[in-house]
Amino acid sequence: MRNVRAEIAYDGALFHGWQRQEGFASVQGAIEDALVSLLGQVSTVHGSGRTDTGVHALRQVANFHVETRLEDDRLRHALNAHVTKGIVIRELETCRDDFHARFDAVGKRYLFLTLTSRFRPPIGRKYAHWTSAALDLQKMRSAARRLIGTHDFRAFGNSGSERKTTVRKVSALRLIAHRDRFAFVIEGTGFLYNMVRTIAGTLIYVGRGKLEPSAIDRALATGDRTAAGPTAPACGLYLLRVLYDEPVFADGEPGPRGRPGVMRFGAG
Amino acid sequence: MRNVRAEIAYDGALFHGWQRQEGFASVQGAIEDALVSLLGQVSTVHGSGRTDTGVHALRQVANFHVETRLEDDRLRHALNAHVTKGIVIRELETCRDDFHARFDAVGKRYLFLTLTSRFRPPIGRKYAHWTSAALDLQKMRSAARRLIGTHDFRAFGNSGSERKTTVRKVSALRLIAHRDRFAFVIEGTGFLYNMVRTIAGTLIYVGRGKLEPSAIDRALATGDRTAAGPTAPACGLYLLRVLYDEPVFADGEPGPRGRPGVMRFGAG
Repeated sequence: MRNVRAEIAYDGALFHGWQRQEGFASVQGAIEDALVSLLGQVSTVHGSGRTDTGVHALRQVANFHVETRLEDDRLRHALNAHVTKGIVIRELETCRDDFHARFDAVGKRYLFLTLTSRFRPPIGRKYAHWTSAALDLQKMRSAARRLIGTHDFRAFGNSGSERKTTVRKVSALRLIAHRDRFAFVIEGTGFLYNMVRTIAGTLIYVGRGKLEPSAIDRALATGDRTAAGPTAPACGLYLLRVLYDEPVFADGEPGPRGRPGVMRFGAG
Repeated sequence: MRNVRAEIAYDGALFHGWQRQEGFASVQGAIEDALVSLLGQVSTVHGSGRTDTGVHALRQVANFHVETRLEDDRLRHALNAHVTKGIVIRELETCRDDFHARFDAVGKRYLFLTLTSRFRPPIGRKYAHWTSAALDLQKMRSAARRLIGTHDFRAFGNSGSERKTTVRKVSALRLIAHRDRFAFVIEGTGFLYNMVRTIAGTLIYVGRGKLEPSAIDRALATGDRTAAGPTAPACGLYLLRVLYDEPVFADGEPGPRGRPGVMRFGAG
């Protein structure tokens, strides 16, 4: 048995999220099914974390154990031939035996994409959030700066359990505006459930003038969910990258952190 | 009864083409159904032409007669509220009574989009054509130049009838390459069935080195379909604009030719 690490892109619009669920198409389920049909082996595909229904991924990371003579590149090709459309295994490499995509992850990078056109674009509705409102980028930048750092993000999400801490570190939050598109890239040491989407909804509320940038300070200080903005829809969210401490590969090659992203969105 | 002219964007991935068909979701059917539910009137929505299953439109033009006190802008809003997701009425204006979207059209402009990334992008598969091959833009430009002008395009499509002429005029054909994307915009006085997609497939074959640019001359001279390349898939095709001789509006305002396109694709 060898442990392999895979980088996976998928179209969230086609799946009920990452996690295997009986009766629903999931990314994890599709890859596990492909392993069964290809190798006749039942393996658990460990993702770096779950993504919700509708959330896309450019480089989700997962690991799983397989017993096969196929070399990494052939295994990747064969898996891609067997896996459902809408999923691509971009990289697949044998890694050290104790690598675990979830437990070893030290951070994640997401992108949230909003369109601000007059009309809701009918084409590609499942690949971006949309608002017809004009956004005040200056105010949004002011709000974004307040989110960077180590804070209790209780007002922006849910730890999934009462006992767990809601303190997280946002190490980077970069806003990008181009014509009628607005996006931000956020990087941090893990995120609370719905945290990126609530940050998106809050920044957009600030951009629309429905909240002042100072509302961020109040939300962080009080932990009051109602002080933040709404949770933006999943369609705008892309998992860009999972961060690891290098090296993760068996041959000592560096992990994904050092690799530039090359895949971009389909059309536009 | 007044005659209105509408500009319509739609996501071709969600419909079995423009034309109403019993038992299949079509763009024409969806708009006609919205008119019934909104006004209780059965109107025929006359499109400038059909688009096939999977073909997208940014500004398809249609006209139809309605009896209503709703002003143009209110009618547009109400229609958008009633019509299926994936369709947006971008403009709606009362026009001269004898305007006909199909018979009055003097030309069309299409875009064809191809991605040339190493992997087939899993996200947005229905919004672009994909090839992993590198494309030789120089050769493609040489091929494209040979297509411009008035030619018998029999080798590139089908008139739909033996008796009709297969002579068409391509007035513009512009190639655009940016990173891993390749697109071309083609404008002409109507196109044969599948003509734009076959031009796309042929240009890509030339770009891949499977055909020389001179193959275009041979295909045009002989009318031999096998001298051209394959028909590229519908997902890469966007109807950008339908061209009319101005003025088409009741108030003498110019038609769409003079208006800059503002809508761009959803995400990317």
